[in-house]
Amino acid sequence: MGGRILVINPNSNEAFTAGIDRTVDRLRFSGGPEISCVTLSEGPLGIENARHAAEVIPHILKLIAREEDNCDAFVVACFGDHGVVAAREMTKKAVIGFCEAGVAAALNAGERYGILTNMPEDANGELRLLRAHGLDARLAAIEAVGVAVADLVDTPEVREALLGGAERLRERGAACVVLGCAGMSPFAPWLQRETGLRVIDPAIAAVSLAIGAVASAARA
Amino acid sequence: MGGRILVINPNSNEAFTAGIDRTVDRLRFSGGPEISCVTLSEGPLGIENARHAAEVIPHILKLIAREEDNCDAFVVACFGDHGVVAAREMTKKAVIGFCEAGVAAALNAGERYGILTNMPEDANGELRLLRAHGLDARLAAIEAVGVAVADLVDTPEVREALLGGAERLRERGAACVVLGCAGMSPFAPWLQRETGLRVIDPAIAAVSLAIGAVASAARA
Amino acid sequence: MGGRILVINPNSNEAFTAGIDRTVDRLRFSGGPEISCVTLSEGPLGIENARHAAEVIPHILKLIAREEDNCDAFVVACFGDHGVVAAREMTKKAVIGFCEAGVAAALNAGERYGILTNMPEDANGELRLLRAHGLDARLAAIEAVGVAVADLVDTPEVREALLGGAERLRERGAACVVLGCAGMSPFAPWLQRETGLRVIDPAIAAVSLAIGAVASAARA
Amino acid sequence: MGGRILVINPNSNEAFTAGIDRTVDRLRFSGGPEISCVTLSEGPLGIENARHAAEVIPHILKLIAREEDNCDAFVVACFGDHGVVAAREMTKKAVIGFCEAGVAAALNAGERYGILTNMPEDANGELRLLRAHGLDARLAAIEAVGVAVADLVDTPEVREALLGGAERLRERGAACVVLGCAGMSPFAPWLQRETGLRVIDPAIAAVSLAIGAVASAARA
Amino acid sequence: MGGRILVINPNSNEAFTAGIDRTVDRLRFSGGPEISCVTLSEGPLGIENARHAAEVIPHILKLIAREEDNCDAFVVACFGDHGVVAAREMTKKAVIGFCEAGVAAALNAGERYGILTNMPEDANGELRLLRAHGLDARLAAIEAVGVAVADLVDTPEVREALLGGAERLRERGAACVVLGCAGMSPFAPWLQRETGLRVIDPAIAAVSLAIGAVASAARA
Amino acid sequence: MGGRILVINPNSNEAFTAGIDRTVDRLRFSGGPEISCVTLSEGPLGIENARHAAEVIPHILKLIAREEDNCDAFVVACFGDHGVVAAREMTKKAVIGFCEAGVAAALNAGERYGILTNMPEDANGELRLLRAHGLDARLAAIEAVGVAVADLVDTPEVREALLGGAERLRERGAACVVLGCAGMSPFAPWLQRETGLRVIDPAIAAVSLAIGAVASAARA
Repeated sequence: MGGRILVINPNSNEAFTAGIDRTVDRLRFSGGPEISCVTLSEGPLGIENARHAAEVIPHILKLIAREEDNCDAFVVACFGDHGVVAAREMTKKAVIGFCEAGVAAALNAGERYGILTNMPEDANGELRLLRAHGLDARLAAIEAVGVAVADLVDTPEVREALLGGAERLRERGAACVVLGCAGMSPFAPWLQRETGLRVIDPAIAAVSLAIGAVASAARA
Repeated sequence: MGGRILVINPNSNEAFTAGIDRTVDRLRFSGGPEISCVTLSEGPLGIENARHAAEVIPHILKLIAREEDNCDAFVVACFGDHGVVAAREMTKKAVIGFCEAGVAAALNAGERYGILTNMPEDANGELRLLRAHGLDARLAAIEAVGVAVADLVDTPEVREALLGGAERLRERGAACVVLGCAGMSPFAPWLQRETGLRVIDPAIAAVSLAIGAVASAARA
Repeated sequence: MGGRILVINPNSNEAFTAGIDRTVDRLRFSGGPEISCVTLSEGPLGIENARHAAEVIPHILKLIAREEDNCDAFVVACFGDHGVVAAREMTKKAVIGFCEAGVAAALNAGERYGILTNMPEDANGELRLLRAHGLDARLAAIEAVGVAVADLVDTPEVREALLGGAERLRERGAACVVLGCAGMSPFAPWLQRETGLRVIDPAIAAVSLAIGAVASAARA
Repeated sequence: MGGRILVINPNSNEAFTAGIDRTVDRLRFSGGPEISCVTLSEGPLGIENARHAAEVIPHILKLIAREEDNCDAFVVACFGDHGVVAAREMTKKAVIGFCEAGVAAALNAGERYGILTNMPEDANGELRLLRAHGLDARLAAIEAVGVAVADLVDTPEVREALLGGAERLRERGAACVVLGCAGMSPFAPWLQRETGLRVIDPAIAAVSLAIGAVASAARA
Repeated sequence: MGGRILVINPNSNEAFTAGIDRTVDRLRFSGGPEISCVTLSEGPLGIENARHAAEVIPHILKLIAREEDNCDAFVVACFGDHGVVAAREMTKKAVIGFCEAGVAAALNAGERYGILTNMPEDANGELRLLRAHGLDARLAAIEAVGVAVADLVDTPEVREALLGGAERLRERGAACVVLGCAGMSPFAPWLQRETGLRVIDPAIAAVSLAIGAVASAARA
Repeated sequence: MGGRILVINPNSNEAFTAGIDRTVDRLRFSGGPEISCVTLSEGPLGIENARHAAEVIPHILKLIAREEDNCDAFVVACFGDHGVVAAREMTKKAVIGFCEAGVAAALNAGERYGILTNMPEDANGELRLLRAHGLDARLAAIEAVGVAVADLVDTPEVREALLGGAERLRERGAACVVLGCAGMSPFAPWLQRETGLRVIDPAIAAVSLAIGAVASAARA
């Protein structure tokens, strides 16, 4: 069916973009849409607070406007879904965010879901976003792993923190785990094997929904 | 990545299965998962009431149990999501239903969604299902087109009924339209062009989420 | 006013039926409706998973269809409310389930209610049912006693487990306790005396609502 | 099992008390609890506004305190559930109100319920009460019949108003109708026959739940 | 703009009235509305249960009716919002309660709020009130300090209890703290300094909203 | 108590700023906080879509950061509450938006509220904002007046449109009306007189809550 999906990493950390690119590689098929992952050069190294988020949104919107004619769907590769609602006003093309897509996939995977997040102070903002999305009814819990975005490297301590968080989510009733940070993506297969819980990687969720959107648009 | 998705049409109407098969054909990619559409031979010609639904569920579960080792994901191709929650208890493979997947895709497409359903008396059961799924917060409205499942053939009257229903959904605030019956699938591209509304075909939504689930499982 | 209420134990455990029969005996009045408790011979010994539940529902519906002309109300004597919504489509007679009736009675008894359930893994399915029923707003908590249905016999360990569960519900804000398994019924009077909490036995709740439905039908 | 249920009409209109007494007569059984209907002498002729309601509550509480030792359950026979929550703090005996009991019975009767109320301006207060009760999720609609409490006498106009209101509730999705005023009780059987909708008379609902509560207390 | 706000302390404890008077003194401005704090002489020394609350409401309504022509807004200075909804039916003047106003201000101050209450058994009634107000979505938690209304005097033990409660609210996600008892008002500035959390004193919240209402009325 | 409240009009229309300034003038008291209304020079002439909103937020945040030491509270004078949540992360000073404050005041004024908005397509974004704020439970309806922001001048047609919208809100159950656009402010007193409904001007609501916040901060 052809088509092109543009995955936008809104921070300027190229390593993040590369990690997302590796994750979504499994969804590149011959005859399927092209999946391009780009780094927003104007983004901060990490979106660590609301001010960063606010500043990055106009740049996301400009990029989408600029690429609109070359793309069939856009993915904003950050759990804050920055600019997604605004972009939908500007373009008829699908615009998909990591949080909304990840939770949507989680609902299709098990009864209640939990979110692994970086820091305890992230929870209130995520609750607001879930409420705005109307997706909070089946939330079991949000658990922080206590590891900042930049520190999500492969060490025994990080693995232990992720495992501990996932186990706390299970105890609080979660049947599946949504990764609340793109930096957790490389750990997804391991975490799923270790815990037996379904682990939802929003990169996979968002791109597979984008493939569906491209397929629908191609029919129309 | 390989893998196999089994799409189960729980009624025994082969024409429905063929229609679904044509719709999901756009999601068959070289290197992607095989997508097989099967008819549940034990199903009634149409699932028209709660008794039909109850009787069909044990057969769906048996089919999934029988095919579990040959498949990586299952789709129950009916808006009632019959047996989906029960099946998830029985298998670690993904089990996805048309209603839950269709609405999940709709939330990723626009602010509020509407459902086109066959008959006015369908609405209360659909509301119960949406409440159980925790997916009712962004529902704008359910509108019946007044055409029974079996009568969804391509006539000017049917097109007019679908168009009228979609326009009523728009007036009630829907930004996108979820097709509440597999028999509406052939009309999706036309309805999207005519109305300018995003039209969500649950067959596309469910299979694209299933592709994502297969991709995740392949990584794990 | 006469009339007849059929209480259907959907598992094939005759001891359960006998226990329910003893419990509802207090609601048999001269001049009141006859209350018959029957065992569904096609049911499994215990409904222990979603597959059991799915398989039992068609048999419940057949029994109700067969007995419709001889009865004025039906009670499905299991906390999963199996087939209740479907049966309401088939008959104008009242069809009442243990969960919906038990919680309805609990709301009329105290501010927030808790549910005593068998196993921790029961909670998510019960939450889904409460959400579907629209009865979750005043739920304080679900607490598992860690005793399987078949093990609910009168031993000091079982009593301790029930008491512990009820006390945890009180600490989490419950003013009354709904018994989430028909096998807990014999312990209800004792548990109420020990804890001072209102203990709601769904058998009593469902049959008293059925008496009301029979009285209404007799007037109409 | 014996026991006594005191039904308190909180207005001082003896004709209302007599009407309630006739309605609940069907629930008087040999061997069942005694059901006494009393008029609150301190009540106004009709509880027509919030001030009336506020003034009547202390008298209801005094009556319950005075009769506590002589009764096993209390019913407050008014759709405002005046004093019910407060009374539950004062006594271990069951205290049941018409709104909470009527809606609880309605949820056990059909998918969504509607309320027939007297005047359009009643709706907001009823919505507040339903929200406080946590019972609003399955409300289809509230429809006013435009007949004041005192005018609910048996005339063709009143019947037409009731029928019209019930039909509007059906069109808005109600599967059953809760009578929002005790004065509508005599019309319940006729309205049910005419419309085919289940009509819930809160007097029957409340007293049958009270019978269940007395049966539970008798066991404890 | 002139005008007069009447703050009604519904208990008869003059020391409480004096404390409220001191708190709201900061909102007395030259040219602003007069703010009068009065003690309801018919009130109990403390409103400690639902019966006290019920008995006090008719007196509050009478006082408001009597003072209606002399006032532009009324504040009911108690976290139970006794009589507020009823009073709004009787007068076009603004009637504001401590709970509704305090939570409204909290929502304008931070993401989620917590309530400091006196005793654990207060929580269920407060939850009912918040549900009725439609203000429970952003509640993080209610924490009891274990100090009765009458014992809220300035001792190290009371300060420790307040501090402990506020810290538990923070751990449960509260970004700001609403004082659930007028007797906590003198501790507000200290508690805010100690914890760094925004502390909402309902007296300030209610009177500032009343000032806004008087300003609106003056324009109209 | 002194202090300073900065009211930020985020569009660059000086006439709007002047209108807001006139409205809040009633809340300027000798001894009260200074109330300064400023125009965001970087803002567009009108915030008419999500892209405008996204672009304006970083400028609002910069202005707040720049003025933080000179102000005790900030008001963002637009119904989209642009940047309010983000700003609260950056400063301990109160930050208040028109929508959240206006609805908070409305809840303190009457049972259900309605919103008058400019265009039908505004409703979905406002519903999202209300859901995120957790303030949608008592919403009666949103009604568009069909007049764009720039066209809100004093003509008979505009008055008729406003009056018609308010009457439709009343019919749908609203007891008070929240003005969903700052440009409606001059019509507030007239609309309140004409309709008898309480009309909430968010400028008054936000500034009076800000006065309360300044009073609290001054105590701490």
